Amino acid sequence: MTTYFSEAASVETVNARMSDTTDPRLAEVMSSLVRHLHAFVKDVTLTEAEWETAIAFLTRTGQMCSDTRQEFILLSDVLGVSMLVDAVNNRKPSGSTPSTVFGPFHVDGVPERRMGDTISLDGVGEPCLFVGRVVDLDGRPIGDALVDVWSDNADGFYDVQQPDLQPQHNNRGVFRTGPDGRYWFTGIKPVSYPIPDDGPVGEMLGHLGRHPYRPAHMHFLVTAPGHERLITHTFVSGDGYLDSDAVFGVKAPLIVEFEERPADSDGPKWRAAYDFVLPPKA
Amino acid sequence: MTTYFSEAASVETVNARMSDTTDPRLAEVMSSLVRHLHAFVKDVTLTEAEWETAIAFLTRTGQMCSDTRQEFILLSDVLGVSMLVDAVNNRKPSGSTPSTVFGPFHVDGVPERRMGDTISLDGVGEPCLFVGRVVDLDGRPIGDALVDVWSDNADGFYDVQQPDLQPQHNNRGVFRTGPDGRYWFTGIKPVSYPIPDDGPVGEMLGHLGRHPYRPAHMHFLVTAPGHERLITHTFVSGDGYLDSDAVFGVKAPLIVEFEERPADSDGPKWRAAYDFVLPPKA
Ligand SMILES: [Cu+2]
Ligand SMILES: [Fe+3]
Ligand SMILES: [Fe+3]
Repeated sequence: MTTYFSEAASVETVNARMSDTTDPRLAEVMSSLVRHLHAFVKDVTLTEAEWETAIAFLTRTGQMCSDTRQEFILLSDVLGVSMLVDAVNNRKPSGSTPSTVFGPFHVDGVPERRMGDTISLDGVGEPCLFVGRVVDLDGRPIGDALVDVWSDNADGFYDVQQPDLQPQHNNRGVFRTGPDGRYWFTGIKPVSYPIPDDGPVGEMLGHLGRHPYRPAHMHFLVTAPGHERLITHTFVSGDGYLDSDAVFGVKAPLIVEFEERPADSDGPKWRAAYDFVLPPKA
Repeated sequence: MTTYFSEAASVETVNARMSDTTDPRLAEVMSSLVRHLHAFVKDVTLTEAEWETAIAFLTRTGQMCSDTRQEFILLSDVLGVSMLVDAVNNRKPSGSTPSTVFGPFHVDGVPERRMGDTISLDGVGEPCLFVGRVVDLDGRPIGDALVDVWSDNADGFYDVQQPDLQPQHNNRGVFRTGPDGRYWFTGIKPVSYPIPDDGPVGEMLGHLGRHPYRPAHMHFLVTAPGHERLITHTFVSGDGYLDSDAVFGVKAPLIVEFEERPADSDGPKWRAAYDFVLPPKA
């Protein structure tokens, strides 16, 4: 017997159509999406005008995307979806350094630098020494770990956002640990910055009474043979946006004290020490 | 006390950020969307690769949209969301003609024709006489009702899809009922057609093992002073796609017997009789 569409049986009617798929995981994912989307429409009694607004919003979001702009990732970020996908895929044993969002500004193929080198190629910003170790769950050093780091410049922009103003790979570098697991390099103390907010997502944040800022952070991608890959940030303690990161990336264990060094001391003005703890590969 | 993001409290963390909005309905809608989206991610443990596929799919869907193509409406249609939004906004007293999806092919400003005129301007297709009445819940005729009708041509395309091949307003017309509530006009027996399936939505239907066809139907928009507007179709009884309309538009009371008239009779080959029942304005 045929079941035609009805409000009461809307989910079952749609999901009954997926029985001929050759991709059972796709059917599983889409059936769940249909179930939750329909529940959403019913819960709020979405009006026809609101549906039209949603269609127009999604269309503009897609059309804002380009080689250098991913507005749907921003949408996922500000709704906490990116952090949630990160969370459900990176449940780690306790004691591990927590992960956070990857973000859109990582670059592949950045040159490996000599330990101690600076990543601030333009010399602009407040110099900061970054030091620490890559260790396992028992605190033993991990050698041959690659510490891939990237940050914004003193104006809050990544090099790829300002290809005409910043040297290529400004505030980026890859460092390889020795047997003692230690890393150290100079960069700048990062600054808070707004996610791109001149598109539909920025508009939506405005209507929701939300600001687009992220607290100052350093991005790290740490890989080591035999260990789980770690994608994370360290956040600058005391930043005014720690409690309201536009993309919900902050976790308490990732907040780091940036110590200001005495005015009469040599070397960088700031110092940030942090150890990365990697669980063994699952 | 600050609550940073966690898998367990993901919904509360995101929704706590909407307290400064000046648009409480937007906050209500978005809070519900966040709740259901997060539940979806958790229920299926969406992988990072699947999330990337979703981002790319939504981006392509937006970029497929143009002045003559609305891929996000197609997406909403094939997931049953359009029918559901129609359902929750058009709950009608029993006895009313049910509504169905509006579809993307309605045109404003089509000329009012004289009762009995044909809407088949190119004369291609199997002629069909459409007759019936517009009545209220008590079966009383409604005069001065506007019956706005549109259909595809014999090849399954609307005039707006083939501006170079079909005359403007081919298979479209607006008719005004007299005091007896009657309408009658000649058109063609509509044919089933696929929704545009050369984009991401068509690709998704393919992966889900679904075809893109809609059963043959006539579109009607019926308006009358003092009564609720009715957006609906009539479907051709016996069509092979009635049980699997790609957009879930079929409802049993909308299926109409198209009677083939004796070969030796005058006039159109087919005849389709249907009365539209409009409830009073709420
Ligand atoms: Cu849900
Ligand atoms: Fe960043
Ligand atoms: Fe149609």
